[in-house]
Amino acid sequence: VKLERVRIVGAGLIGTSIALGLVARGVKVELIDSDEKAQRLASDLTQSEEFSSPELVVLALPTNAIPLVIEREFALNPNSTFMDVGSVKSEPIVHIENSSLPLTHFVPTHPMAGREIGGAHSARGDLFITRSWVLTPTAECDLESVALVLQLIELLGASAITLDAAEHDRAVAMTSHLPQIAATLTAISLESADPSWLELAGQGLRDTTRIAASDPVLWSQIIFSNRVEIHALLMGLQSNLTSMIKALEQPSAIEAVMTAGGRGRARIPGKHGGSARQYTYLPIVIDDKPGQLAAIFNECASISVNVEDLSIEHSPGQLNALITLALSDSDALTLSQHLSSIGWNVHPVRK
Amino acid sequence: VKLERVRIVGAGLIGTSIALGLVARGVKVELIDSDEKAQRLASDLTQSEEFSSPELVVLALPTNAIPLVIEREFALNPNSTFMDVGSVKSEPIVHIENSSLPLTHFVPTHPMAGREIGGAHSARGDLFITRSWVLTPTAECDLESVALVLQLIELLGASAITLDAAEHDRAVAMTSHLPQIAATLTAISLESADPSWLELAGQGLRDTTRIAASDPVLWSQIIFSNRVEIHALLMGLQSNLTSMIKALEQPSAIEAVMTAGGRGRARIPGKHGGSARQYTYLPIVIDDKPGQLAAIFNECASISVNVEDLSIEHSPGQLNALITLALSDSDALTLSQHLSSIGWNVHPVRK
Repeated sequence: VKLERVRIVGAGLIGTSIALGLVARGVKVELIDSDEKAQRLASDLTQSEEFSSPELVVLALPTNAIPLVIEREFALNPNSTFMDVGSVKSEPIVHIENSSLPLTHFVPTHPMAGREIGGAHSARGDLFITRSWVLTPTAECDLESVALVLQLIELLGASAITLDAAEHDRAVAMTSHLPQIAATLTAISLESADPSWLELAGQGLRDTTRIAASDPVLWSQIIFSNRVEIHALLMGLQSNLTSMIKALEQPSAIEAVMTAGGRGRARIPGKHGGSARQYTYLPIVIDDKPGQLAAIFNECASISVNVEDLSIEHSPGQLNALITLALSDSDALTLSQHLSSIGWNVHPVRK
Repeated sequence: VKLERVRIVGAGLIGTSIALGLVARGVKVELIDSDEKAQRLASDLTQSEEFSSPELVVLALPTNAIPLVIEREFALNPNSTFMDVGSVKSEPIVHIENSSLPLTHFVPTHPMAGREIGGAHSARGDLFITRSWVLTPTAECDLESVALVLQLIELLGASAITLDAAEHDRAVAMTSHLPQIAATLTAISLESADPSWLELAGQGLRDTTRIAASDPVLWSQIIFSNRVEIHALLMGLQSNLTSMIKALEQPSAIEAVMTAGGRGRARIPGKHGGSARQYTYLPIVIDDKPGQLAAIFNECASISVNVEDLSIEHSPGQLNALITLALSDSDALTLSQHLSSIGWNVHPVRK
């Protein structure tokens, strides 16, 4: 079955982004929301149209709202396939089991994409490009239902990953919910800081607490939905914290804890998937003004060097900035020699 | 007194970087290390020379090594000013009080710079450019001694900040040592992960655990030196973690914890110092090949738009990448309209 008509229930960030992406690929979309204002904004943005018999109905709403809409949606489209997009996957399956919709026609999914800001006005049709999109089909699930969902994922430029629902929830408890809580708890400590102390904040504190700025309402629902898995991890964290407090009296005990942390960190694969890629970091001092970055990237392009990532640091009252390029080992060597030879203030790579 | 001759004791990352930076600015440097191999490498790198009567002696070694060298160094240069560069400031002051060196001639300092890799071979003369460099002079400290250290900091391109030593140690316990431990404890949880779970790792987990990869030996010394301040913070963290575990049973309680984390995070000033700057993030989809970034930065330069920061995301088997530019609000609007008008796949900024 070809995906031609999709009904999306819920005009938040995810629902509206799916709508924008599908419309751009020629799929007809009907986007509805119980909130009148959200509905109007979303319709303006997405050229939403009315139709019957969509192949697919996307439940793009908080998991705890599924029971409120599912009977109406199933009565409207009893032959359609349904999918959800929640961050936790065991709970929506229970909601569907308790509804009239047969599990054969329901595919639980979780797109690994989001932004720190929500709402239809933040939606982007390209939100899912290059991202993973997890499917956790139950044993009852139709292959045809899965095929429809795979079409949607491909149209939106994402990569599908199939997992068992319980395993997905254990995985995201560790890779997403635990770091969210760790960042939040670290950030809470800053509430008692003297402002002058925070002038000493470096990149470490910024990175470690960045996601503490996420939406508390959205996150309280996610954490509550996955509280069983999260509880087990937080008990483990508390036990490790107690060991760390005891270790404070002995440098060798502290070192053992830090070493274990390094081992855990090394298990995270690189951005490109697969095993972690080692980049070489090339620092370059530039004048802090427009045109300097362009000039460097022109040099990169002229010798076919590919920049994998980049950070920029500058401080007030300084006329220069430090940019650090992440490159493959060989590209770093090539670029370092090239830029040095034409007079850039680059720190040569030594091996 | 003008800074013309500096003796540096310790040829690690910081000592060698100071040497490189000073030599580049025309200051004579003698760099010594008790390890013969480190000494040879450092001398090769820095054009170290022998001289007597340096104005300044830099103790660029772990704080617990200061008692091992201080009597010899003081006997060699009884009229010089001394400074250290340790991450914790109460302990070195105690070491000097217990030595023959008068406190009048000692300036405790802490450069806020470092790299995840250590050693002379990682040293860079530009390591301190745009960074803060904290001084914590005691009440006994000579103004002339402080003036010499300020010359060194300025020559190396850093910005001096004066603080009380105890206050510095409280501040770095919170802004540096606590996030280091939080990152380490979060990373330790990953040791028990199935590798397939870690395929779901997003930027949140990466950022939250990045510094868990730091040198465990170096960090065990830093944490041990500041254990009193750190102990108080970890007790607070443990109490907050206990509250979080209790909160798991109630969404409103979870939300209150997440909201407090958001408040703490918002207290961190922006990279440029002063109050946090709000950037607008502009996402652009590009082909993942050399030349695309250069083309975008050329457009930025042509309309005088200044890029504050940048991230790049790409995944395997995808031919395009998503780059996100951090810009001022007005620059984001200008650039968004400009790039859209010439056919780039940019998501227009809506206000």
